[in-house]
Amino acid sequence: MTDVPSIDPRTGDVAEIVAAETTTAEVAALCRVADAASRPLEDLGRDGRAALLDALAAALEDAATEVVALADRETALGTTRLTGELARTCYQLRLFGEVLREGGYLEATIDHPADTPMGPRPDLRRMLVPIGPVAVFGASNFPLAFSVPGGDTASALAAGCPVVVKAHGSHPATSQRCYEVLAGAAEQFGAPPGTLGIVHGQQAGADLVAHPLVRAVGFTGSTAGARALLAIIEKRADPIPFYGELSSLNPLVVTRAAAADRAADIGAGFVASFTLGGGQFCTKPGLAFVPTGPDGDALVEAARRAVAALDPVVLLNERIAESYAAGAARLAQAPGVSVVRTGTMRAGGVPVLLTTSARALPPEVVEECFGPIAVLARYRDDAELRTAIERLPSSLTATVHRGPGETELPDALAGWLRPRAGRLVFDGYPTGVAVSWAQHHGGPWPATNTQHTSVGTAAIRRFLRPFTWQNAPQEVLPAELRDAYGAIPRRINGTLHPTA
Amino acid sequence: MTDVPSIDPRTGDVAEIVAAETTTAEVAALCRVADAASRPLEDLGRDGRAALLDALAAALEDAATEVVALADRETALGTTRLTGELARTCYQLRLFGEVLREGGYLEATIDHPADTPMGPRPDLRRMLVPIGPVAVFGASNFPLAFSVPGGDTASALAAGCPVVVKAHGSHPATSQRCYEVLAGAAEQFGAPPGTLGIVHGQQAGADLVAHPLVRAVGFTGSTAGARALLAIIEKRADPIPFYGELSSLNPLVVTRAAAADRAADIGAGFVASFTLGGGQFCTKPGLAFVPTGPDGDALVEAARRAVAALDPVVLLNERIAESYAAGAARLAQAPGVSVVRTGTMRAGGVPVLLTTSARALPPEVVEECFGPIAVLARYRDDAELRTAIERLPSSLTATVHRGPGETELPDALAGWLRPRAGRLVFDGYPTGVAVSWAQHHGGPWPATNTQHTSVGTAAIRRFLRPFTWQNAPQEVLPAELRDAYGAIPRRINGTLHPTA
Repeated sequence: MTDVPSIDPRTGDVAEIVAAETTTAEVAALCRVADAASRPLEDLGRDGRAALLDALAAALEDAATEVVALADRETALGTTRLTGELARTCYQLRLFGEVLREGGYLEATIDHPADTPMGPRPDLRRMLVPIGPVAVFGASNFPLAFSVPGGDTASALAAGCPVVVKAHGSHPATSQRCYEVLAGAAEQFGAPPGTLGIVHGQQAGADLVAHPLVRAVGFTGSTAGARALLAIIEKRADPIPFYGELSSLNPLVVTRAAAADRAADIGAGFVASFTLGGGQFCTKPGLAFVPTGPDGDALVEAARRAVAALDPVVLLNERIAESYAAGAARLAQAPGVSVVRTGTMRAGGVPVLLTTSARALPPEVVEECFGPIAVLARYRDDAELRTAIERLPSSLTATVHRGPGETELPDALAGWLRPRAGRLVFDGYPTGVAVSWAQHHGGPWPATNTQHTSVGTAAIRRFLRPFTWQNAPQEVLPAELRDAYGAIPRRINGTLHPTA
Repeated sequence: MTDVPSIDPRTGDVAEIVAAETTTAEVAALCRVADAASRPLEDLGRDGRAALLDALAAALEDAATEVVALADRETALGTTRLTGELARTCYQLRLFGEVLREGGYLEATIDHPADTPMGPRPDLRRMLVPIGPVAVFGASNFPLAFSVPGGDTASALAAGCPVVVKAHGSHPATSQRCYEVLAGAAEQFGAPPGTLGIVHGQQAGADLVAHPLVRAVGFTGSTAGARALLAIIEKRADPIPFYGELSSLNPLVVTRAAAADRAADIGAGFVASFTLGGGQFCTKPGLAFVPTGPDGDALVEAARRAVAALDPVVLLNERIAESYAAGAARLAQAPGVSVVRTGTMRAGGVPVLLTTSARALPPEVVEECFGPIAVLARYRDDAELRTAIERLPSSLTATVHRGPGETELPDALAGWLRPRAGRLVFDGYPTGVAVSWAQHHGGPWPATNTQHTSVGTAAIRRFLRPFTWQNAPQEVLPAELRDAYGAIPRRINGTLHPTA
């Protein structure tokens, strides 16, 4: 039995022992309870689960002071940021309640019997149904928004799927406390036992992904971690869907007209964005393309001044601090890369700004380096810019800063960047991912979630699967597919009907 | 250079040499041309691609006589079935045109800037965009509906994705001719070169899946074939989405009341379904649960008589015939299994009917055996039925035959069967998969396509990915996301607005 320690990253000390690592037998027992909860959770209905999500949000808010303090002790992210993160998480739980009440997410579709050029068609009724118990892997950098509470848990519960969370080892006490708050609220609400579970320890995470009753995996973390889980999934008798939120470079392009218009603003804004939260965001812009010439020089100088004004930050944990120091050193030593501003490379969280040329763009520069570091790549003309963009890996986001009224180059940039991103930001910064109906937080590998999002209302789609009833009696159909039901949007014989 | 022969399964003779196997360099060249076609194909717009699909359907219809004769020579499926399959394929191409014109598939979503409990929200606009070039693997059993033309190709082209088809070695001449017909029509229409490509040979298929410019794979075939392709995908620097349509048992349950009502009809109907097309359908019902007692006996006897009246059939190819003979022999020799009616096991396509008890249900019985064979498993009571159902793998379909007005047991059966299927058929048979809006052709592994369908209008979703524009100028947005656009359903600030 191995202890799970809670470590204070500000001191490196063990603050408490949170739990013992969850054993294989315990994981299996949790999966069985989760599986048993599947049908009762679905049977709560959309309104019932919406009310459950509201109850979870209220319970988290009641425990806010304690949870934020604990999270700050384990992550050093600061209480302001963490209070905001908790608000985000509660807003998200309630927004999924709205999604449930509105019901369009079910994609309810009815085809009445008909004669078609391919022959007679039976009565077919399709909607999305819960996929079953979901394993959620908490992230180190969002102890509240992508961990025990957070987008994966909220969207899975909304879908009607019980959740077993693998607590991140970087904040086990926060995870455990959040679990107790949420599980307590769920029990009090009358949700089935097994609606929410938690496991601690790396082996427990592997056991969870391998367990036959787990039907999907939500993961936010490193590409290496994802590859390890994918290898477990591939060995299953029945490989299951894996929704990973992995690495992301998040390139930003400043057009010549934008630099001419507001070099200083963009320089400072870029620094604020890449150092926000210690640069420990999946949407951190790690690379900016800046034109050569005086306006670009002014931008670089503004960025340099902004970085110089920053204090070192405590990174999330020792592993991340070590990895950051090594990554920053590797970047600084890459051919063609110059250091604009940095402290000593040996201290973990010193913000670092580098420059290189878009033409050179060494391979180190197009890989994510997690932490408060970014590279400014100078380009001479649009052709050089395009060539550089076409060498980029896929990211969650790409950003364009354009000049006032400029549209031709931004349109071309959108075409070059779109295959390499999931969200295209104009005249802003990619950090700060609004939870909303139109949000998309995904992208082709290594960003992953090519087909799905892990932020926003569409995140629920990951934990649902389509199901069709053919010539089913009304009594056997889900309420939403019966003839008389009109409380959700439905597509009938190809025509979309809004809520009656 | 290896020849690709077209073999007549009725004689085993080589009818012609169709092509040389496509080399690795040729595959790469095709992928580059397909990639170059991506943007122009998207830029045709929804109406343009709808018109392209109409043109492809018309061209196939013009070539129907020749294509059907060729397909019959290579598959022995008969001209009646193949004429119907061609009609299905043309209907499907045109239906995706309707999908494009209607536009709801884009999931266009607009969030205007707003203040939220988590802070200010920017302008966010999301819709689905083409994923890029798609590799489609033709199936042996549907030379027209799941091969060069067919659901994967139609839905990918509709989505705006160029397609490179790996021709199935069982009908290379049909594949090549269909390719020429479709590519010729596409060229005449003005579609970009590279809209459609074709490769021959197993290595070419592997090269295709490994190629960096291929962004998704559609596959209809065996679990072993899928595992091999998944292994290639896992080795890619960027693993891509894989949509497989693999193995399926398709269990069918006859309630006691249904057997009392119409034993003879169901017995005969079941045989007609499992022997249709030589039992070479992914929706073939391979296992039926039949009650013990006189009504069940009558059903078995009716099925026996129906099988006895059938002639042997020529199976699709020698490998399938050999595999069928071996599988049928293995099933017949499984413990607790009795042969009701068969010819000689050595002849490829002899229909075989077997019985066993639901209590025993040996493992051989719950695996798909491709060909005209099925097992009747006799159950004594509902508890025995439920236990047996819970031992079944996932399938594309499950079927329930119920008594007149019977709802309680059918409702319970729906609950037991739903986790193990993608479509639940009442009082009918799973063969015959209508192409429509509410269709779902998928299911958890080994049926695969857990999250997506390979038949019906929703199949287009596989070849699209979400993309969000943040604070984008109107000029850079796709037409469908601009303020003034009203020609498709859109969700604005959470509310679904039908087409204006």
